[in-house]
Amino acid sequence: MIEKYMTEVALQRPLVHNITNYVTVNDCANILLACGAAPIMADDLLEVEEITTLCKGLVINIGTLNARTVEAMILAGKQANKLGHPVILDPVGAGASQFRTETVSKLLSAIRFTVIRGNISEIKALAIGSATTQGVDADRKDQITAETFEDTLAFARALSNKTGAVIVITGAMDIVTDSETTYVIHNGHPRMGQITGSGCMLSAVIGAFVSANLDSPLHAALTAVVAMGLSGEMAAFKIENAQEGLGSFKTYLLDAMSLMTPSLLKAGARYERYSQ
Amino acid sequence: MIEKYMTEVALQRPLVHNITNYVTVNDCANILLACGAAPIMADDLLEVEEITTLCKGLVINIGTLNARTVEAMILAGKQANKLGHPVILDPVGAGASQFRTETVSKLLSAIRFTVIRGNISEIKALAIGSATTQGVDADRKDQITAETFEDTLAFARALSNKTGAVIVITGAMDIVTDSETTYVIHNGHPRMGQITGSGCMLSAVIGAFVSANLDSPLHAALTAVVAMGLSGEMAAFKIENAQEGLGSFKTYLLDAMSLMTPSLLKAGARYERYSQ
Amino acid sequence: MIEKYMTEVALQRPLVHNITNYVTVNDCANILLACGAAPIMADDLLEVEEITTLCKGLVINIGTLNARTVEAMILAGKQANKLGHPVILDPVGAGASQFRTETVSKLLSAIRFTVIRGNISEIKALAIGSATTQGVDADRKDQITAETFEDTLAFARALSNKTGAVIVITGAMDIVTDSETTYVIHNGHPRMGQITGSGCMLSAVIGAFVSANLDSPLHAALTAVVAMGLSGEMAAFKIENAQEGLGSFKTYLLDAMSLMTPSLLKAGARYERYSQ
Repeated sequence: MIEKYMTEVALQRPLVHNITNYVTVNDCANILLACGAAPIMADDLLEVEEITTLCKGLVINIGTLNARTVEAMILAGKQANKLGHPVILDPVGAGASQFRTETVSKLLSAIRFTVIRGNISEIKALAIGSATTQGVDADRKDQITAETFEDTLAFARALSNKTGAVIVITGAMDIVTDSETTYVIHNGHPRMGQITGSGCMLSAVIGAFVSANLDSPLHAALTAVVAMGLSGEMAAFKIENAQEGLGSFKTYLLDAMSLMTPSLLKAGARYERYSQ
Repeated sequence: MIEKYMTEVALQRPLVHNITNYVTVNDCANILLACGAAPIMADDLLEVEEITTLCKGLVINIGTLNARTVEAMILAGKQANKLGHPVILDPVGAGASQFRTETVSKLLSAIRFTVIRGNISEIKALAIGSATTQGVDADRKDQITAETFEDTLAFARALSNKTGAVIVITGAMDIVTDSETTYVIHNGHPRMGQITGSGCMLSAVIGAFVSANLDSPLHAALTAVVAMGLSGEMAAFKIENAQEGLGSFKTYLLDAMSLMTPSLLKAGARYERYSQ
Repeated sequence: MIEKYMTEVALQRPLVHNITNYVTVNDCANILLACGAAPIMADDLLEVEEITTLCKGLVINIGTLNARTVEAMILAGKQANKLGHPVILDPVGAGASQFRTETVSKLLSAIRFTVIRGNISEIKALAIGSATTQGVDADRKDQITAETFEDTLAFARALSNKTGAVIVITGAMDIVTDSETTYVIHNGHPRMGQITGSGCMLSAVIGAFVSANLDSPLHAALTAVVAMGLSGEMAAFKIENAQEGLGSFKTYLLDAMSLMTPSLLKAGARYERYSQ
């Protein structure tokens, strides 16, 4: 089923505008190319509206936000909304500083997001204003386990109801949900949390998949999560076989995404629709 | 013939000042080291003149320009002109926004460039003010083919006449020309367009080659284009043999440049002087 | 002996705040993860104090400084001092421009540093205000050899006396010293100077090791230098065996750090305590 959303990316090669952090920006550009889309990074007030107009979708990532770029995010987001382009939010480190928490709140007021993707601490910070975020990783107390699953899902749905966005929470298992339908994804590998950028790259890939599948943001996001998780599994398998480390893992993750085919995706996907 | 321009880089290890974008900056620094030069990145008004004075050449890349860095580009470029240092322009995305198009026009008024390198859409935007640029890649309508070759060359020569710069247009085939002499280069591989930074890296390498060969910018630029294209071929050969993807391709591209020797360059070069 | 300082990093997983340059920032984040720590990059005035409060240590790297980020460095450094968090300085290119030299002098007045790491030209610029720095690499006249060793050590100790910091000078051999005790480290490989970021990555790793070993900054810094040097040796061995180049070297350097164990470290360490 989901492989058709992947095929659309290859067919349309959507141009995706990224206003993102300078830590993982190169990986985001390369994973967009690897999944069949095309990236453009532009963050100046003087051009973001025009650039976003050229593109099919917009990804806003607050990883190294500053006063100048936050203004650009808002301008670009409003323009994308006006044009009906999908807008993805990656609230990196929301809850870790007042500036991040307030920025996210400003973004949520000004812009209608199609998808919001974060770890559970970030999504909790958005949903209930809690501030247990430790840096840019999820707080260790905030793991999705069988026991915490229902609570986590409740946060996600509340945030989806409040924003109208599809919510993606990534962790040991991943959740993709709107206010009605929920998918739980079991693809992925712990190594992904041991390099920088796995989350940012996924948000970029979601941007590509949603831009190429405008009428199905929920399933497009689900497919992106599966594709990224499966790429992580393939990369982990390769380094474990060869006794290689995290540098090679990052390289093989890009390799895997660029070598992904609809039939590999179909064969490797592990997700289920969740019914309470 | 061209291998002597490469040898000069290794002998002189020119220090190259880069005011460039934050997407591919790491790759640009590493390819400069790989080709035998040394990089320094500095973009603040308070130091760019001094830094460029220390260096042998300057590369200006507008990939993620903003109001602050554009001013720094102009200051540094003027200082480099004053000292007789070569200055290379990479007009990333010229034509994609008014800000980019106007910035390039401002740069061309204020600074005398030694080499300008772009894809055909970017060079067209500079030569005739057309705005068909789609993001940072060449418009699909703008391919250099046998049919469009004469027109493309006419743009390049017009721009060279206007600016005094050597013009480098990269694509399926590459053109290096001044107002009198033209080379057509057949090295390179489509994979280079599937990672971010191939163009930026080439502009940086041109900066190194031109800085070490002050009296022959045309041939130095030609050699840089051949060296980069050949590195791309070697990297593509390696991933295709091993069924690897785009992450490995990027790694092997850097590998190939760092392993390039004058005799490998001589053996692999595929270019011709074009006579109408 | 030194392996226990490494074990502490793995046990504590310290969160390290980096205000750093946009050239090597991704490598710094990945090497921090590879050595068992966790990175956060944040450079805006509006959040740096809060972010540094969340963290266990702070690394300040002036590689692509600008007026805005210098202010943020000072705010964050003062806050870290107030909390007793270790602060590491990497004075990239000190001596290469007045702005860099003045910034370093401002930082040294405002902030008490735990460790300062640079190449010999940078450390000389700090110790005696000389300005022979050529770009971001050590001047070729400034090599640590048997003949210049005593002079170099004298600079380092003078700077340690002046600042109270542990001084780390890296080059063909490395020196780690405070005003009383000196270690000379023979690990490392010339390839490390042929990619961008080896120095920046080491400063980040020192940040992690010192943050996890608050009462032993001298030995924690020594261990970080050994771990990084040994990773370079392992990566160089691997590319030379396989006839690979600098792209693979960078990947294998990250691999080696992520695969480093206390027993590998113990077996591979080559350093001595220096007694005059």
